[in-house]
Amino acid sequence: MSVSIFDSFLTTPEMIKVFDDTSIVQAMFDFEEALANAEAAEGVIPEAAARTIASVCNAQLYDIPAIIQAGRRAGALAIPLVKELTKAVALTNQESATHVHWGSTSQDVLDTAMVLATREALKLIDDGLGELTAQLLKLADQHLSTPVLARTLMQPAQVTSFGFKLVGWAAPLMRAREQLREQSARALQLQLGGAVGTLAVLGDKGPAVAQRMADALQLKVADAAWHTQRDEWMRLGMEVAVLTGSLGKMATDLSLMAQGEIAELAEPSGNGRGGSSAMPHKRNPVSSMIALAAANRAPQHAAALLAAMGQQHERGLGNWQAELAEWPALFLGAHGAIKALNEAFAGLIVDTRRMRRNIDALQGLVFAEAASIYLASAIGRPNAHALLEKLTQRVVETQGHLADALTVAIKEDPQLSKQIDISKIQDLFDPVQATGAARALAERQLKSLQQDSR
Amino acid sequence: MSVSIFDSFLTTPEMIKVFDDTSIVQAMFDFEEALANAEAAEGVIPEAAARTIASVCNAQLYDIPAIIQAGRRAGALAIPLVKELTKAVALTNQESATHVHWGSTSQDVLDTAMVLATREALKLIDDGLGELTAQLLKLADQHLSTPVLARTLMQPAQVTSFGFKLVGWAAPLMRAREQLREQSARALQLQLGGAVGTLAVLGDKGPAVAQRMADALQLKVADAAWHTQRDEWMRLGMEVAVLTGSLGKMATDLSLMAQGEIAELAEPSGNGRGGSSAMPHKRNPVSSMIALAAANRAPQHAAALLAAMGQQHERGLGNWQAELAEWPALFLGAHGAIKALNEAFAGLIVDTRRMRRNIDALQGLVFAEAASIYLASAIGRPNAHALLEKLTQRVVETQGHLADALTVAIKEDPQLSKQIDISKIQDLFDPVQATGAARALAERQLKSLQQDSR
Amino acid sequence: MSVSIFDSFLTTPEMIKVFDDTSIVQAMFDFEEALANAEAAEGVIPEAAARTIASVCNAQLYDIPAIIQAGRRAGALAIPLVKELTKAVALTNQESATHVHWGSTSQDVLDTAMVLATREALKLIDDGLGELTAQLLKLADQHLSTPVLARTLMQPAQVTSFGFKLVGWAAPLMRAREQLREQSARALQLQLGGAVGTLAVLGDKGPAVAQRMADALQLKVADAAWHTQRDEWMRLGMEVAVLTGSLGKMATDLSLMAQGEIAELAEPSGNGRGGSSAMPHKRNPVSSMIALAAANRAPQHAAALLAAMGQQHERGLGNWQAELAEWPALFLGAHGAIKALNEAFAGLIVDTRRMRRNIDALQGLVFAEAASIYLASAIGRPNAHALLEKLTQRVVETQGHLADALTVAIKEDPQLSKQIDISKIQDLFDPVQATGAARALAERQLKSLQQDSR
Amino acid sequence: MSVSIFDSFLTTPEMIKVFDDTSIVQAMFDFEEALANAEAAEGVIPEAAARTIASVCNAQLYDIPAIIQAGRRAGALAIPLVKELTKAVALTNQESATHVHWGSTSQDVLDTAMVLATREALKLIDDGLGELTAQLLKLADQHLSTPVLARTLMQPAQVTSFGFKLVGWAAPLMRAREQLREQSARALQLQLGGAVGTLAVLGDKGPAVAQRMADALQLKVADAAWHTQRDEWMRLGMEVAVLTGSLGKMATDLSLMAQGEIAELAEPSGNGRGGSSAMPHKRNPVSSMIALAAANRAPQHAAALLAAMGQQHERGLGNWQAELAEWPALFLGAHGAIKALNEAFAGLIVDTRRMRRNIDALQGLVFAEAASIYLASAIGRPNAHALLEKLTQRVVETQGHLADALTVAIKEDPQLSKQIDISKIQDLFDPVQATGAARALAERQLKSLQQDSR
Repeated sequence: MSVSIFDSFLTTPEMIKVFDDTSIVQAMFDFEEALANAEAAEGVIPEAAARTIASVCNAQLYDIPAIIQAGRRAGALAIPLVKELTKAVALTNQESATHVHWGSTSQDVLDTAMVLATREALKLIDDGLGELTAQLLKLADQHLSTPVLARTLMQPAQVTSFGFKLVGWAAPLMRAREQLREQSARALQLQLGGAVGTLAVLGDKGPAVAQRMADALQLKVADAAWHTQRDEWMRLGMEVAVLTGSLGKMATDLSLMAQGEIAELAEPSGNGRGGSSAMPHKRNPVSSMIALAAANRAPQHAAALLAAMGQQHERGLGNWQAELAEWPALFLGAHGAIKALNEAFAGLIVDTRRMRRNIDALQGLVFAEAASIYLASAIGRPNAHALLEKLTQRVVETQGHLADALTVAIKEDPQLSKQIDISKIQDLFDPVQATGAARALAERQLKSLQQDSR
Repeated sequence: MSVSIFDSFLTTPEMIKVFDDTSIVQAMFDFEEALANAEAAEGVIPEAAARTIASVCNAQLYDIPAIIQAGRRAGALAIPLVKELTKAVALTNQESATHVHWGSTSQDVLDTAMVLATREALKLIDDGLGELTAQLLKLADQHLSTPVLARTLMQPAQVTSFGFKLVGWAAPLMRAREQLREQSARALQLQLGGAVGTLAVLGDKGPAVAQRMADALQLKVADAAWHTQRDEWMRLGMEVAVLTGSLGKMATDLSLMAQGEIAELAEPSGNGRGGSSAMPHKRNPVSSMIALAAANRAPQHAAALLAAMGQQHERGLGNWQAELAEWPALFLGAHGAIKALNEAFAGLIVDTRRMRRNIDALQGLVFAEAASIYLASAIGRPNAHALLEKLTQRVVETQGHLADALTVAIKEDPQLSKQIDISKIQDLFDPVQATGAARALAERQLKSLQQDSR
Repeated sequence: MSVSIFDSFLTTPEMIKVFDDTSIVQAMFDFEEALANAEAAEGVIPEAAARTIASVCNAQLYDIPAIIQAGRRAGALAIPLVKELTKAVALTNQESATHVHWGSTSQDVLDTAMVLATREALKLIDDGLGELTAQLLKLADQHLSTPVLARTLMQPAQVTSFGFKLVGWAAPLMRAREQLREQSARALQLQLGGAVGTLAVLGDKGPAVAQRMADALQLKVADAAWHTQRDEWMRLGMEVAVLTGSLGKMATDLSLMAQGEIAELAEPSGNGRGGSSAMPHKRNPVSSMIALAAANRAPQHAAALLAAMGQQHERGLGNWQAELAEWPALFLGAHGAIKALNEAFAGLIVDTRRMRRNIDALQGLVFAEAASIYLASAIGRPNAHALLEKLTQRVVETQGHLADALTVAIKEDPQLSKQIDISKIQDLFDPVQATGAARALAERQLKSLQQDSR
Repeated sequence: MSVSIFDSFLTTPEMIKVFDDTSIVQAMFDFEEALANAEAAEGVIPEAAARTIASVCNAQLYDIPAIIQAGRRAGALAIPLVKELTKAVALTNQESATHVHWGSTSQDVLDTAMVLATREALKLIDDGLGELTAQLLKLADQHLSTPVLARTLMQPAQVTSFGFKLVGWAAPLMRAREQLREQSARALQLQLGGAVGTLAVLGDKGPAVAQRMADALQLKVADAAWHTQRDEWMRLGMEVAVLTGSLGKMATDLSLMAQGEIAELAEPSGNGRGGSSAMPHKRNPVSSMIALAAANRAPQHAAALLAAMGQQHERGLGNWQAELAEWPALFLGAHGAIKALNEAFAGLIVDTRRMRRNIDALQGLVFAEAASIYLASAIGRPNAHALLEKLTQRVVETQGHLADALTVAIKEDPQLSKQIDISKIQDLFDPVQATGAARALAERQLKSLQQDSR
């Protein structure tokens, strides 16, 4: 395991594996193998040398902790790795050993290894997002007409459709998935520049070698070595940060709606999940917890990457190393959050009766605006507004219900009785009818998202 | 002026104007005017009301500081603004006043105002980047064959072409410009959702009103209100942060190359620019300073935006307000940096003789790798490597020049003399020839960038 | 006003004034006056020159926007300010003009000006904290025995005392106040180093001049110029960030308890505060909003300051300028939050009946642990635990109350009836009795805090 | 190893061990053992139970990866750990098992474990700082009179003493060491609050149990449980961030002075340290690199901690977990930097001749201010200033030396010849004499620091 005890808790075994020591070291060997093969194909080094090199480009043959330890002294992980690889090749053929890592530089190896690992990380995220958005869209479809309180500034505001909320959660995740694919197409590129980005050692064979390597590793060829121009790489990182922000927004809502006093949603329990022995009534929202933790941290990890962009000249001092060390954190957090939320939605308890009860508890006041609009058509906006203001105040004081107060007020006033059709009043206070606008918007967007997800 | 004394110093008057109080308040009025017109066109409010509203949607008619002051109590800037607008309309027509801001909510107004201001900000950045990349590409064209030290880990490494460095600085700026245009096309969208994002008050007219408003303001219609789903808006912010990182990378290099002891580049001086009365020899790189300051701050501003993404339910508490306040900072910094760098490049002093002298001062050691490769073709890599290692060590100790040491070594060894063509040695140590690979790569990329910039 | 429209909304007019253009420029003149006087007293410059200089060290005499504008070109605000001051002195006496700013450097002026402004900012914060903690302690005293739900992981957990919560909010603010005073004593120091921190121009008079200036400005004399060693300054900034975090924690709790569905607390309303015309039932927690916005932003402002610490050599390029621009933000946010929370607590509505109702709604389950402990003393922990587990499950299913279920269970089981004193059961479920431990701890800590606050 | 391959590279094995899985889990067991013993001593649980519990509080008896894995489901690491501990106790005595973890909560265990680990981390840092400051002060003592260029805004400015620079590097580290000790005394406190911070289960024994536990673990007793009031803990973290900033400042200077073109300092080489096979002349400053990487990252880690402060109610959701995961990073980075810099200074190459050569290369211009002051005493400041301005301009154009130009100018002008003692001119341009003010200040501060460090 290559993350701390506290991180392992907040991510997934799959994502840990993507960035663990063995995976990274193997990816570095994959680079060296691809380099040797490409150079042999272009006649830069002998075919035999490439074959020998390829035969020992296997992380399992090496003492990885020793390489890491030596890397500290050398100031670069690739230096001892190349040294050990050279030794291994020399055991077979002394001359072939001189062709190891030919024309390349430490950063070529490590950056490309990171690209390869990141590609795996993105697959995990893409799969997880596919599952999560599918769950959300399915649930949205079921709840298009389910009334639930909309809340603003952490106060109940009006009635909306729960399906509308779900579509709202799904849409940014689908945009993130699309953007990640788009930015990947730009950012997953081979790093190959040699000592100072000019591939000078390869003479005019540089571009051809790069093309062959990129083909072998299924990466894009970069317009130029990106040793110290990290913008395309950064965009990918920023996208993961934005995604994590959207996951955090959803987890925020989820955890607020799961509060014991609101209880409209609950994460699944059982099987050692989220329980508390001392407090048997508790059902801790542990999935939300993991997603919130990721969202709490992602902005700073993004900032750490951006702060490392000022890399000096042709290869940086300290900032590149900082970037490497910070890079996996965003992916670890994002995947932890996605998996946790997938678990939550797989067993999510949606308490539609409680949603209704929470609306009812507000004494009809959340329908005041709708009532006002209805009355306005009969008695004009100023009168409607004044009437409602008086009635809502009375309702707040007397703990009554606005629908009743309004009905009484109309009945008691002969003028109003004439102007207003009292039979429609009850409809104004019907939560299901109140979801109308939300449902219509949600249906339209849901349809569009369903098409995108195909 | 609406930025602090320290910020005004690091940005531009043009960008300050984009986000100053009057501009934002006017943009809020622009929203209200467009709303009224669209609603009138759709029959939601009377035409006459729309005309009256439009006639007073002019920031100059209002006491802006008083509105700001009242906004603090209300918890939202739009509340007192709408109140004042309503009052102004009522002076003309009491009934029309009831149609002000109809169906909309505070955040609709402010978010759209921010979008309108941001569009202006992006125009300034786009123009500035156009100028800056043009300067860089032109300079690159002039210096394709100018040898300069490439440096890695803050140490001289090998020889490259100064044109290659310039192309390297230009490319990420051109990518940023393109990405900003692309993200703008997604993010510059109307905000219109009403109290809880459902546009309930407008009934089935909501989408049509939104479309008309968007047309009038030349903005995109959003798939849904984005009150608390900020991902598309964030991507735009992140892109400015990435751009600022690339500007900072360039300023880092510039300031390092402008150090008195290296002196390959100098920012223009004169006219009160960068001088020091106490130290007449100083030519402070003030453009780099401004760009570095922006790059220092941008990661944190980006993080602040990301940290505000977890906005609760239908409209957030505190986080949206934080986002609004942080948003302009990225644009202020980026434009300050761009303008400063444009000034620097407009008068940049490129000391190619000093570039040459700095190469020469390294005793030919930066050509060791090239020499080793040349020798390898004659005596094999192991022998070549061993010979060079011995010679470089000697050169370091004796302060000589590697070319001389190598020539002597070959001449003194009959075996080597036979194998190696001594007449080619001097070429290996020729800085201009050493730029070959860099020049070729730079030429190719320059051509491609020049086409993109057309 | 020198902050953006969005910032002005989140801070206070008092704090804006502390850091506005005029205040900073005047503080710069205060530095120049103190410098001239100290140098005259030490015989470094003529007394007459000092008098002339002092007579024009008044911000009102100058065109501040023009100075700021010129500062941009010069790369330092102090350069045009000194130039204008010199001109003003020269109007009176040409020779005296040569003594302006003698031996000092731009950064001396600006850093000291920032120290002077910060001292005012800290006074505002200290006063605000004094008021806020007094309000909290007074309220705590009133509510030591008020039962309220304690909540963990955003779920109701057990019963605690509301006074205990209030003491918990107050304590970190009192610690922050003490730490701010302590760190101020270290950090509010004169900056005086001359061009490279050595005060070389003043010869051996440097320390004496510094001492006199510090006395005049009532600042500490630094051990050495701190142009690029910012650690003591940073500690002060970090302390404001930590304080803001504690304010944010309190606002988080406040906003959660003020949710319409929980409604244990409410911010005061009326007078245009936190209302919503469309939603008459809403009482938006605008004080919490301001504090949450500050807490949202403070971590990034702290990071921006820390990120500026790597200032090069004797005076930095870009990072110092970034620090200056970021510095006020922490103070603006903190004071906005303190003032907002003071307003909230001045009229806070504490609904103790609702606190009780929220406890009651949990069917006695929050007392399960207490019941278990009581039973354990009679029937052993394993049996007690098993019994409670069974009963709580039943209660959850049947919507009953644990006290009733337990009473019935004991009565129905002759064995239990013998072992357990049924008359004590009701006490176990009494919220007031359940606050016992919390009340005792709160009383003790309250007493200690009251003494500290004297 | 519990950090990623990229982190292991930037920190030390000692610090990795402090926070690795086994250490944390053992510290959790240490908590449980101390809790049981304290409760037994206070009669809360039987002595026998405490003995049994203590006998199995040994991390080596458990399957740590399995505990971590289960923690993910539970939402808390302590839950499965307590479960396993309970099982282990039950093997010996079923009844004793009911006393495990009595009255405590998950966060008590983990927070205290983190405190215990952090105490070890601080010891490593304290030792490292002791060594580093001793090295710096010793070197400072040797170089009090060594002239070196002072540089401002990345330009050569004037001459200072290298000892002065060294004292400037040492002072903030000594302050950090002192502050860390001070903040540790406050922050290294026991966490013991039970489910909601009230220790309700322990009745009136709570405080006594806490006191005994704190004594056993040699920690401070907190004024109150600090589950969600993290200010004291944060201050400790912020101090490590500030320390890292100061280390980064030193590394910035070191790396700038080690540039091949400046070459005043060099990190030690040899033994696989900082070399480059392709570029034999390179001596990469790998210690600076590690310190710079730490300084690059620390601001964001500090921000992540601050951003986690808004922990809800009695125990937070997500933010506490984020804090735990971020906490070690600051310590890992700081110790990596300290150790690396200790290695650098142990073999630092100080090239005093090159320092001199770099001064000489500036044609005497860095002495212009000193010359101006000297002349002013003879011919008045305006004349002196005008003369020097003319001469420096000439020197810049002609590549001459200011001392020569000045001497000639005086000789050629009979008036000046009379007023100015030409014999003193050469002294003005003597680098050693120019260090006078710096040396005096450095000596004084050095003496004071040496006393502090005893």
